Amino acid sequence: MPTLSDRIRTHDVPRLRAWLAETGTLDIADEFARLEPGERAVLFRLLDKDRALAVFEALDPIHQQELLEALRADQVRELVEEMDPDDRARLLDEMPAKVANRLQQGLSQAERQKTSVLLGYPPESAGRIMTPEYVSLRASMTSTDALAKVRRSGGEVVTLRVLPVTDDQRRLVGVVDLPRLVTAAPSTRVGDLMRTEVHSVTVDADQEVAARLIQEADLIALPVVDAENRLVGIITVDDAMEVLEAEETEDIIRSGGAEPLERPYLAANVVFLARKRAVWLLLLGVAAVLTVNVLQAFEDTLEAIVTLALFIPLLIDTGGNSGSQAATVVIRAMAVGEVRFRDLPRVVSRELTVGIALGAMLAAVAFPLVTLFFGSAFATVVSLTLVTICTWATFAGALLPMVAKRVGIDPAVVSAPLITTLVDATGLIIYFLIARAVFAAELADGAGTLAGLLG
Amino acid sequence: MPTLSDRIRTHDVPRLRAWLAETGTLDIADEFARLEPGERAVLFRLLDKDRALAVFEALDPIHQQELLEALRADQVRELVEEMDPDDRARLLDEMPAKVANRLQQGLSQAERQKTSVLLGYPPESAGRIMTPEYVSLRASMTSTDALAKVRRSGGEVVTLRVLPVTDDQRRLVGVVDLPRLVTAAPSTRVGDLMRTEVHSVTVDADQEVAARLIQEADLIALPVVDAENRLVGIITVDDAMEVLEAEETEDIIRSGGAEPLERPYLAANVVFLARKRAVWLLLLGVAAVLTVNVLQAFEDTLEAIVTLALFIPLLIDTGGNSGSQAATVVIRAMAVGEVRFRDLPRVVSRELTVGIALGAMLAAVAFPLVTLFFGSAFATVVSLTLVTICTWATFAGALLPMVAKRVGIDPAVVSAPLITTLVDATGLIIYFLIARAVFAAELADGAGTLAGLLG
Repeated sequence: MPTLSDRIRTHDVPRLRAWLAETGTLDIADEFARLEPGERAVLFRLLDKDRALAVFEALDPIHQQELLEALRADQVRELVEEMDPDDRARLLDEMPAKVANRLQQGLSQAERQKTSVLLGYPPESAGRIMTPEYVSLRASMTSTDALAKVRRSGGEVVTLRVLPVTDDQRRLVGVVDLPRLVTAAPSTRVGDLMRTEVHSVTVDADQEVAARLIQEADLIALPVVDAENRLVGIITVDDAMEVLEAEETEDIIRSGGAEPLERPYLAANVVFLARKRAVWLLLLGVAAVLTVNVLQAFEDTLEAIVTLALFIPLLIDTGGNSGSQAATVVIRAMAVGEVRFRDLPRVVSRELTVGIALGAMLAAVAFPLVTLFFGSAFATVVSLTLVTICTWATFAGALLPMVAKRVGIDPAVVSAPLITTLVDATGLIIYFLIARAVFAAELADGAGTLAGLLG
Repeated sequence: MPTLSDRIRTHDVPRLRAWLAETGTLDIADEFARLEPGERAVLFRLLDKDRALAVFEALDPIHQQELLEALRADQVRELVEEMDPDDRARLLDEMPAKVANRLQQGLSQAERQKTSVLLGYPPESAGRIMTPEYVSLRASMTSTDALAKVRRSGGEVVTLRVLPVTDDQRRLVGVVDLPRLVTAAPSTRVGDLMRTEVHSVTVDADQEVAARLIQEADLIALPVVDAENRLVGIITVDDAMEVLEAEETEDIIRSGGAEPLERPYLAANVVFLARKRAVWLLLLGVAAVLTVNVLQAFEDTLEAIVTLALFIPLLIDTGGNSGSQAATVVIRAMAVGEVRFRDLPRVVSRELTVGIALGAMLAAVAFPLVTLFFGSAFATVVSLTLVTICTWATFAGALLPMVAKRVGIDPAVVSAPLITTLVDATGLIIYFLIARAVFAAELADGAGTLAGLLG
């Protein structure tokens, strides 16, 4: 069966139209992401006006931008004019300044102004993702008056679900859910319907803080206020979910020792993919050079007992793994707000206990096995090293992300791969120190036995 | 200053009341999680009825359960009766069957039935998180009739934001947003207001699929239907966000080579924390035993050239790191739906290119440095190994999660630590094979030079 790309290349318009007619907006947007940029424009022009806008809004900013480049100027103007102000701000923000300026010139006065206001707030701030289109009520209105105002507003569906209530200084005093307004008796005052324990954020608050608040308080919309508590916009739940998805992607990718892509995987070219990992890999590589130096310092021991070298990968892998386990669990607990810096002593004491327990378990498994094949001296060294490395790695894995966050570094950065590398280098030192001690003791013991026999 | 725990222990009721009065519901719930179970009940009884319910709903199921155990039977009944059916189902589901049964017996007939219906659907299914409390409309109603029905329903705010439209067989034919109904002219038919391109899921669909759909299509509520497309409930956006947070936690923790905790970090005891990691650490440890065997097979080479051993940790760390980078990026792209199994050839070819590029970069850095300290033969071995290991690790890191997902294993399981360990063992083989080849060539070369000199 010919693929979508094939049909676009052969200009099989009837089949393409049929496919578009029977396919949902989201699925069309999904297939768009898999097409070549040129093919997308061909398919896009076959959509009728309303669906074209819906598909366009479902695309990632990077695909939106590529598509705009391939469309005629009037189509572009029309699409961008129809977008929500916050989505438009996001798109313009990711474009080269020149292109963004030209696009903004083409907008109507009203739309241009809305976008400019949003773009005036700092990147990643609540101001950037809010919509300045809200319908606010007064506490003194009756529910009938309020509903009449909602009707007259002509606002969009997303901005009418929750209605902020302000005083005559435009200061936020409460919020009313539209369903409450609809189900209330006609003459009820808005002041009696509104919730006054209102969550809100200031325009320059972090986007993630605003989004987590929406998630935790089960909100549909979060009012955004300026420094004087005057209402300037609302953040809707759909934008909050998008922010959380992006933040979570960032955390996950950083935990994997790479940099976030900031665009869909298949939309990123290979050079870009490699660049996003190169720095980390180099940094971790430089850190791993430490392991060469450590081994070199113990070269005599190494030469004397080559068998010790056999266990190096096993021991450092185990240390790395237990370190990343601790780091991952703690980073996630911090991300969802279960753990704060002031919980540090509790976290550290828990993780130390966990580390000792896990190390002891591994040692118990390793001891008989290593004894069987390499004798009890090696078994002692390996077992002692396992307990020490596990404890140390778990401790470091829990401590570092918390300290990092405290001093303002994204904890996901101080995560699995970095901790693995750190624990590897220190783990080797621990290993060889233990080996030296045990073998020295054994030699002394042997000498003692010999002396006893001779005596 | 005395802490909250101190004030509870000293029964400083006036200060505790003052603190509760000035603190938001979410912050109270947050502090609850940090208290001892006994302390929580003391503080909870100081809350007035409405706030008590709000705080209770903001707690995690595990803390809800602990709190219920500490409260009087009538308080328990009241709290559980007031909960939303889906939240109640979730709580009952996590309790021991006996306790859950006793609690359900205490509920009113109506509430008990709602919960039983939800608990009848399979775990992790859409049916478990939907609410059976919705208000459905008919396409033939006018907007005035529809609003009157909404008013009469007495439904809760969350369930009135989006209204499903059904035919006389209760089959889903569309949805109307309440704001559209409010802003429409009085005699407009619901059939003309509703969206007919409606997203829905069946009751036994996966929760995560339903939640992602809500996220991607920017929905406030998603209708849930049975096999005959008859409406049985709706999933609201707040529940979707909760599901996504839980699923993302699961993915992140699995990527770190541990098992998800399924409860807040500070609520989990240390034995539980250790158990959740022990199996993984053991499995990864057993896999790392391979590295001992591999090294042993090459023991002669190792003994002959101890210097080679110096580079083992560096090389296997690098392989592990590049493998986890690829795995993390691909797993995340799959989780958010950017990459499907049919994209496998594209992903693999991209990752192979990235792997070669990164390997070449590292080799270019390593070659002069290793030459300087250890001579060009070692530099050749290390550089060749870096390119090969990086390419192989990146390839395996991208391929394995995709294949895992295809055969029905959570890709996060086949992630960073597992790939690291696999790549370590195979990386060592690659290293020693290259070393043998290069040193054999050098010896042959040296012999040739010698022969030439002698000749």
